[in-house]
Amino acid sequence: MKRKEVVYTHQLGETLHRLAHGGLLLASTRADGASNVMTIGWATVGVVWGLPVMVVLVRPSRYTYQFIEESQSFAVNVPTPEMKDYVTLCGTRSGRDVDKLAEIATSVGQSVDSVVLDACPLVYECRVVHWNDVQPPNLAPNVLDRSYSHGDFHRLYYGHIVGTYAQ
Amino acid sequence: MKRKEVVYTHQLGETLHRLAHGGLLLASTRADGASNVMTIGWATVGVVWGLPVMVVLVRPSRYTYQFIEESQSFAVNVPTPEMKDYVTLCGTRSGRDVDKLAEIATSVGQSVDSVVLDACPLVYECRVVHWNDVQPPNLAPNVLDRSYSHGDFHRLYYGHIVGTYAQ
Repeated sequence: MKRKEVVYTHQLGETLHRLAHGGLLLASTRADGASNVMTIGWATVGVVWGLPVMVVLVRPSRYTYQFIEESQSFAVNVPTPEMKDYVTLCGTRSGRDVDKLAEIATSVGQSVDSVVLDACPLVYECRVVHWNDVQPPNLAPNVLDRSYSHGDFHRLYYGHIVGTYAQ
Repeated sequence: MKRKEVVYTHQLGETLHRLAHGGLLLASTRADGASNVMTIGWATVGVVWGLPVMVVLVRPSRYTYQFIEESQSFAVNVPTPEMKDYVTLCGTRSGRDVDKLAEIATSVGQSVDSVVLDACPLVYECRVVHWNDVQPPNLAPNVLDRSYSHGDFHRLYYGHIVGTYAQ
């Protein structure tokens, strides 16, 4: 489906609200055409290196990890409130066990090769320009205890927002 | 001066616009009471580890670097358009050579010990909960060439936004 391009700050407050309340849908597609989507509750948005950037965090254990490692691109899809059950599904089931994209309409991104979800009114298409990893020794102890009791420290992908598209 | 607390997404689009057009003012105060302020054009804002977070980037060569290293806190002040000359000054002169806070009204932050600038209508007070460094091997070659021809790779400070305050 064809969306119109908007500035990356378009409805950003609403995007961050949804991020913290239910979550956003992080999708990525490998060169072989396989795709996956997962729910994320953490991300930051802004300007780095003169580029509009969205930073997403993915644990190495996640199925999505290998998709972004390979493709170096991703799409962050903002779901509607009506997609609540789907967002829950994408946050609780692994793409290793179930094809979360089998029964939902998708398209290919306009600026990156990642799949995007047609039902989502707003999509950020991103190309990775940097990555680094959460460094345990440099983390506040309460954050370390709360979020990393099993290790599996997140990789941070700094995605250049090459296009923000709204319906 | 007393500001009222607002949600961190308050006028966030405007904050990011100012970030990219002129810049924001990053201030920090050491335990001995000394403060410094510098202009920044790069930052990201969002939610990480369940916390509202602002990420700022500071090169090790910058005078501000030692202030944040010591205090582990900072305040990001959003200037008015009328403060253009001051913002330029803060982006071109080092605090090693000139006291950039000598002739401007300041207060102590409400939630962190950092100095805040009274003339700025919006301030994000942040406590560092994580830091890591830009990793040259993990950076897109064009970004590496454009931003790091002299090395001096940025440290990224992940500041928990403990309070956002508006006039």
